[in-house]
Amino acid sequence: MYDRLKGFRDFYPEEMAARRAVADVLEETARQYGFREIGTPALEAVDLYTDKSGDEIVEELYAFEDKGGRHVALTPELTPTVARMVVAKGQELRKPIKWMSTRPFWRYEQVQQGRFREFYQTNVDTFGSTEPEADAEILAYAADALTTLGLERGAFEFRVSHRDILGGLLRAFDADVRVRDAIRAVDKSAKIEPAEYYDLLHEAGLSYDQAQQFDDLLASEDLSALTEFAGTDEVADAVGNLEAVLDAAADFGVRDHCAVSLETARGLDYYTGTVFECFDTQGDVSRAVFGGGRYDDLIESYGGQPTPAVGVAPGHATLSLLLQRAGVWPEEALSTDYYVLSVGETRETAVRVARDLRGRGHVVETDLAGRSFGAQMSYADGVNAETVVVVGERDLANGEVTVKEMASGDQTTAPVDEFPGDLERPTYDDFA
Amino acid sequence: MYDRLKGFRDFYPEEMAARRAVADVLEETARQYGFREIGTPALEAVDLYTDKSGDEIVEELYAFEDKGGRHVALTPELTPTVARMVVAKGQELRKPIKWMSTRPFWRYEQVQQGRFREFYQTNVDTFGSTEPEADAEILAYAADALTTLGLERGAFEFRVSHRDILGGLLRAFDADVRVRDAIRAVDKSAKIEPAEYYDLLHEAGLSYDQAQQFDDLLASEDLSALTEFAGTDEVADAVGNLEAVLDAAADFGVRDHCAVSLETARGLDYYTGTVFECFDTQGDVSRAVFGGGRYDDLIESYGGQPTPAVGVAPGHATLSLLLQRAGVWPEEALSTDYYVLSVGETRETAVRVARDLRGRGHVVETDLAGRSFGAQMSYADGVNAETVVVVGERDLANGEVTVKEMASGDQTTAPVDEFPGDLERPTYDDFA
Repeated sequence: MYDRLKGFRDFYPEEMAARRAVADVLEETARQYGFREIGTPALEAVDLYTDKSGDEIVEELYAFEDKGGRHVALTPELTPTVARMVVAKGQELRKPIKWMSTRPFWRYEQVQQGRFREFYQTNVDTFGSTEPEADAEILAYAADALTTLGLERGAFEFRVSHRDILGGLLRAFDADVRVRDAIRAVDKSAKIEPAEYYDLLHEAGLSYDQAQQFDDLLASEDLSALTEFAGTDEVADAVGNLEAVLDAAADFGVRDHCAVSLETARGLDYYTGTVFECFDTQGDVSRAVFGGGRYDDLIESYGGQPTPAVGVAPGHATLSLLLQRAGVWPEEALSTDYYVLSVGETRETAVRVARDLRGRGHVVETDLAGRSFGAQMSYADGVNAETVVVVGERDLANGEVTVKEMASGDQTTAPVDEFPGDLERPTYDDFA
Repeated sequence: MYDRLKGFRDFYPEEMAARRAVADVLEETARQYGFREIGTPALEAVDLYTDKSGDEIVEELYAFEDKGGRHVALTPELTPTVARMVVAKGQELRKPIKWMSTRPFWRYEQVQQGRFREFYQTNVDTFGSTEPEADAEILAYAADALTTLGLERGAFEFRVSHRDILGGLLRAFDADVRVRDAIRAVDKSAKIEPAEYYDLLHEAGLSYDQAQQFDDLLASEDLSALTEFAGTDEVADAVGNLEAVLDAAADFGVRDHCAVSLETARGLDYYTGTVFECFDTQGDVSRAVFGGGRYDDLIESYGGQPTPAVGVAPGHATLSLLLQRAGVWPEEALSTDYYVLSVGETRETAVRVARDLRGRGHVVETDLAGRSFGAQMSYADGVNAETVVVVGERDLANGEVTVKEMASGDQTTAPVDEFPGDLERPTYDDFA
């Protein structure tokens, strides 16, 4: 017997049905916002990652040399790939570019609850707009998708922050502070001891006093106090931008889902403006469910024209934890509209009935194994058939089939020539 | 600028829309037949392939050692993975097991028209039935999907053969003939010179006279002559099985799509009974578009209980060539139900209108870049918006919006409070 690889998963139909229902909502909601599906490769040249993130990132990648001597890697995230695609078409693409896709990604990392080596994300991004409406639309998309998935208003929260507020504030303390390192420290702060957090800020170039002050300012979440303290245009502009994003979010009807949280920083270096993370307000899912934000410099760093960008990427694994915790994970069950049960020499009619029902768009199963009445009825029950149509020799001699509603067990006969006849979705009730 | 890897493809929205439409038909048709979606990993232990196919298969694989020292490979096909999954759950799974999925696979091979290193297939398989109905259902599924895609009855043909007819006939010539090698020769016969074909049959253990006779019998396609010639139960049973499959195909309404073609053999060793290949009857797509068949011994060979199986796997690349040739490839274009155009201080209303329209399931775009009327109208045209709703300051002062039908250019005003009001899909006609 062969095993699947550690950190990789097989999804059997029942679980897959629930996952598909969730992915469909994530995609369909994006479509309604005008995001267009793209298709992207599973492999990229490893340079696409190492040029930006340094060679150490290879440790987390499934990287190898292909038979043609190319250094390649399984894609660990979508952003470098879409950046490559935006750069490749350049001016040809109508702006704003609004793209989305659902697919697996791969990272060689420790397997734990909600974290796998093969994991699925729906990536949703807008390129070509610096307007706060673009940030707000991403927040609105995410809130809309979660609400459509059945989460109540109070079940989740977007903690919204701004990289330029954090960076501007740090530079207001000291022009030489290593902003990237300090922001990484902020991103870690919830997961480490305060002493360690202050050490990291100190290493990034703040004095311990400044670190304390910085921490207090972030915790207060008082944007005007912060602007006043910094006294720089950079911070004032960044605060203005964050407020504009939140105003637009109000027009989009999702302001209630957003809380200003300057202690939210996001781990990835490429973010520039607004950043946000989605949290489970009940606190059962302790880390961020997913996150997103603005990354205005990335396309240019990949060799393209300056192209602002903002996006979000719900990861399906942590999202499923949130949905399960909230009791709105879709039922892991098969659904079948009709089972057409054939006994005796009735195959021709049974197959005709099945074909007609399929022609109306229904999920229809028939016998493929020459089984008994009982075995077929048990199978129909196992696949949760709503209606069983029994095509038996005796009924058929009378020009009839039997229509059985599985939930109630009620059954009646129907003229075989009128089944399904003009009916779009014939059931027991139509003939009782 | 970074390049994508050779043999890998980026799909931009227009092309992706067409690909998605085709994949949706392949999947939706399978769903209607009761095939259930599964999810499968992109990586497997390389043993899963080499144990069956020998080490030479590694040459065609994207195989490498992961950071934990595991020898792994990007999956080149789905069958070994589903075999592993069937074996893993064993008796737990209700029979017949009917599974389907669409996903990419990877092979390191020469790139040519319709052949890529990353390629997409929809795999559709039934496990647990030896009945001819199971084979016929696979043929019916494939024919139904192609017809739904817009292909006319005469546009494609399933060339149906049977491994046990070929094998039985070979054994009737000589019990010691190497059947596997001879069947591989049959599979190649259309692509090589007759002399080379006869040499291959000779190497497999037939005399040249026998090779000639064998070739004549296959070409005649006269099943009864063949049964008589062989005079063995094996061939008689195999012919009976093929006839039963074709009879069931007739009941399923797809007999017309099937032609007996004993020169069809399929390349893969694991096939056992019925095999078939789909061909373009216009002949423009010269090789098989896709194929399938019965593989009754595979699950057992992977360590499971004996479990008969039959399946088909339309590959999207060759299928798209066929659909394009036949003029039924879906239009490569975006579609947008509404563009809500906002000018002046009207964002709040514009966003409300957009939200209401999305709530009714429509694809709706709005301005994200603070652009002029003209720029927005041009964008709306570029994304093929059906209706543009203009929310302007002057109209709004009169409690109105303008509704413009893009195809005709006709426009009229509508009361903003009634847009969309009770209408599911408000258009120009509702207000003109």
